[in-house]
Amino acid sequence: MRTLTLECKDKIGEKVTVSGWVHRIRDMGKINFVLLRDRKGIIQLVLEEKPEFTLESVITVQGIAAENPKAPGGCEVHAEKITVLAPAEPDLPIPVNQDPKNLNIDALLDNRIISLRIPKIRSIFSLQAGILNYFAEHMRGEDFTEIKSSKLIGSGTEGGTGLFTVEYFDTKVFLAQSPQFYKQAMVATGMERVFEIGAAYRAEKHETPRHLNEYVSLDVEMGFIDSEFDLMDLEVRILQHIFSRVKEEHRDTLDDFGTDVPDPEAVEKIPRIPYDRGKEIISDSLGRKVFEINPEGERILCEWAEKEYGIDAVFVYAFPRKKRPFYTYPEGQKTKSFDLLFRGLEITTGGKRINEYGMLLENLPKFGLTEEGLGDYCKIFKYGCPPHGGFAIGLERLTQKILGLDNIKEASLFPRDRKRVTP
Amino acid sequence: MRTLTLECKDKIGEKVTVSGWVHRIRDMGKINFVLLRDRKGIIQLVLEEKPEFTLESVITVQGIAAENPKAPGGCEVHAEKITVLAPAEPDLPIPVNQDPKNLNIDALLDNRIISLRIPKIRSIFSLQAGILNYFAEHMRGEDFTEIKSSKLIGSGTEGGTGLFTVEYFDTKVFLAQSPQFYKQAMVATGMERVFEIGAAYRAEKHETPRHLNEYVSLDVEMGFIDSEFDLMDLEVRILQHIFSRVKEEHRDTLDDFGTDVPDPEAVEKIPRIPYDRGKEIISDSLGRKVFEINPEGERILCEWAEKEYGIDAVFVYAFPRKKRPFYTYPEGQKTKSFDLLFRGLEITTGGKRINEYGMLLENLPKFGLTEEGLGDYCKIFKYGCPPHGGFAIGLERLTQKILGLDNIKEASLFPRDRKRVTP
Repeated sequence: MRTLTLECKDKIGEKVTVSGWVHRIRDMGKINFVLLRDRKGIIQLVLEEKPEFTLESVITVQGIAAENPKAPGGCEVHAEKITVLAPAEPDLPIPVNQDPKNLNIDALLDNRIISLRIPKIRSIFSLQAGILNYFAEHMRGEDFTEIKSSKLIGSGTEGGTGLFTVEYFDTKVFLAQSPQFYKQAMVATGMERVFEIGAAYRAEKHETPRHLNEYVSLDVEMGFIDSEFDLMDLEVRILQHIFSRVKEEHRDTLDDFGTDVPDPEAVEKIPRIPYDRGKEIISDSLGRKVFEINPEGERILCEWAEKEYGIDAVFVYAFPRKKRPFYTYPEGQKTKSFDLLFRGLEITTGGKRINEYGMLLENLPKFGLTEEGLGDYCKIFKYGCPPHGGFAIGLERLTQKILGLDNIKEASLFPRDRKRVTP
Repeated sequence: MRTLTLECKDKIGEKVTVSGWVHRIRDMGKINFVLLRDRKGIIQLVLEEKPEFTLESVITVQGIAAENPKAPGGCEVHAEKITVLAPAEPDLPIPVNQDPKNLNIDALLDNRIISLRIPKIRSIFSLQAGILNYFAEHMRGEDFTEIKSSKLIGSGTEGGTGLFTVEYFDTKVFLAQSPQFYKQAMVATGMERVFEIGAAYRAEKHETPRHLNEYVSLDVEMGFIDSEFDLMDLEVRILQHIFSRVKEEHRDTLDDFGTDVPDPEAVEKIPRIPYDRGKEIISDSLGRKVFEINPEGERILCEWAEKEYGIDAVFVYAFPRKKRPFYTYPEGQKTKSFDLLFRGLEITTGGKRINEYGMLLENLPKFGLTEEGLGDYCKIFKYGCPPHGGFAIGLERLTQKILGLDNIKEASLFPRDRKRVTP
């Protein structure tokens, strides 16, 4: 019966069997210390014989659990019998038992199979697994239904640019940029409130610390809203829940990364400013007039929000029509849409959608689109669709910003960029 | 403030506002009855005026909630003010308010945007959303970590056949058939126990009621197992949990479909038979010798299990080496692998994997593979990987079998087959 490293402290004086990876070996002559790593932590083994195994080998050890205030976790195992379950070759390409701060992003990703063994790096993905859980937990709590839509689409609702092509039997299809069409369709079926956790694809050539060509999108769509402000209220509640749960369950990881998440009271205070006001704030800060909100502007707005409201985040709404897709609900030359910027980065785009069939048909030519070209999309609205809207949160961006990672690729297990499709 | 249809019974005598879709209109001359559908149910509206709206239009109604034992749910709303939020065109391609049994699969899928409005069809996907939740719930309870791996892969671990090709900038990649490589990699990092809910792609030309070209795979991988029987034990616990929760939360849907799920005691009794014994049982039943277990054989084995053990399911293990992929742990000419058949259909394939680097290298040439050809795959094992194994449950197949659907496409919101890539 295996005992996890974390449980040994409750079995002092007892015989235990621990299993895991050889994290560190300290040969002290007569006595040897080995750190053993399992999914829950690290424990010290005390060996009277010379260790006959390499770093990263998987071993099972029988021995006696003993108190030792100097050992990690306050306890150690005096080894009596060691079995090597899987030996590791001695030519580890990167060290697993050192702080990864000396490894650059290429070293981390070129050796992904090994770098994910580094406990600090693995903890990023335990926290990310938490976010997936807390997001879904909150959505179910507000009576949203989880959906799984196809990622193979006949045409792109966003206009067809930036799509990857798939050879599909005798035809070609595309990888979906978002489940936009499907989540709207599901609202209109009467499901009313839906969410989806799924892959999204962008065939964009940029190579920046904030873009991935494949990412996980936390998508939300909600019927019977009054305005886009209902959606911002919903996102505030979601973030309050995610942040509170992250704080509860991943305190050690936050500490390890020297970071923290905002309190619910701070999230409540996220300011909401129109796009034009955003440009003014940026212009004032830079001492020159800006004509759009670029990544630099996003950082400036977050700094402004931190200074004025004590929270490093801001909702920007009333984007101009030409900046938003055809399905966005218009309001004069503006739209009922918004972004959420968090710690200098856009982590959400959303808005109220056009739900009126006539208005949609009127809007299409302005974007060079036709009803036929959109396949079945317009049928969603032809047969009665309530006022609705939604948004998407980028999982990797949220993870990146919670932990203060330099590059978004650090927040993806196996990131894809223009040049990287392995491992 | 909106009241859901389901909540009206708690507000008898009060003024309520209900919103939803016009499900049915019964014009009785002076008094008119309208059924209004929202995400929670259906309520009867009583109108003194002639309804000025079409079926499926979205309306908001203010009125007084009143008891009426003859109305659905025992209550109705006497309408005082009706607002049409979104009118529906009158040319509905298929009826929404009738039992879908008269619609064939093509009518259902060609008109998917509308057929998903049919309450009985929508309920399939509420139940499916439940399965997603209950599966993840159980896995987290056993300390498994959720992962999200890339679906764009440089090469196929299963050998490269049956893969869809994606044009990826200046190169070509494939859509993953399974997260096999990644879930094994994550076990080896020290995460030990992982699960993934993600899309899987099979570029196979078959057109059957049990195949999809894109499906949702509920994937599990677990380190430090003794044998494939640990995995069967785990799957039994997962199914017990899913079935119990489905029974709790989706009783009405099970009743609607005239079906039920097995009790935990029945799941416990699922027999486990070697592949060769399976062939014997089928041969005996057919009165002729069979040389493999085909779909007909799967049905016969489930009938046998029902008769002998009172449960319409059976684990088949010890598949021959030539029937399993290269990474399957061998045992003489057999393998430590298994399938789970449920109600006549294979819903799971799994097994213990090769975790020893040397054994893996020895096995590759037998499958025409090389270490280099597999990219980074072999590195998982080169640096210490514990004994492990896993399996995958097909979400749509499980949904299909729970509800007794004729065709698996009925269990996919927007199914993809050789000819269908819309909507």
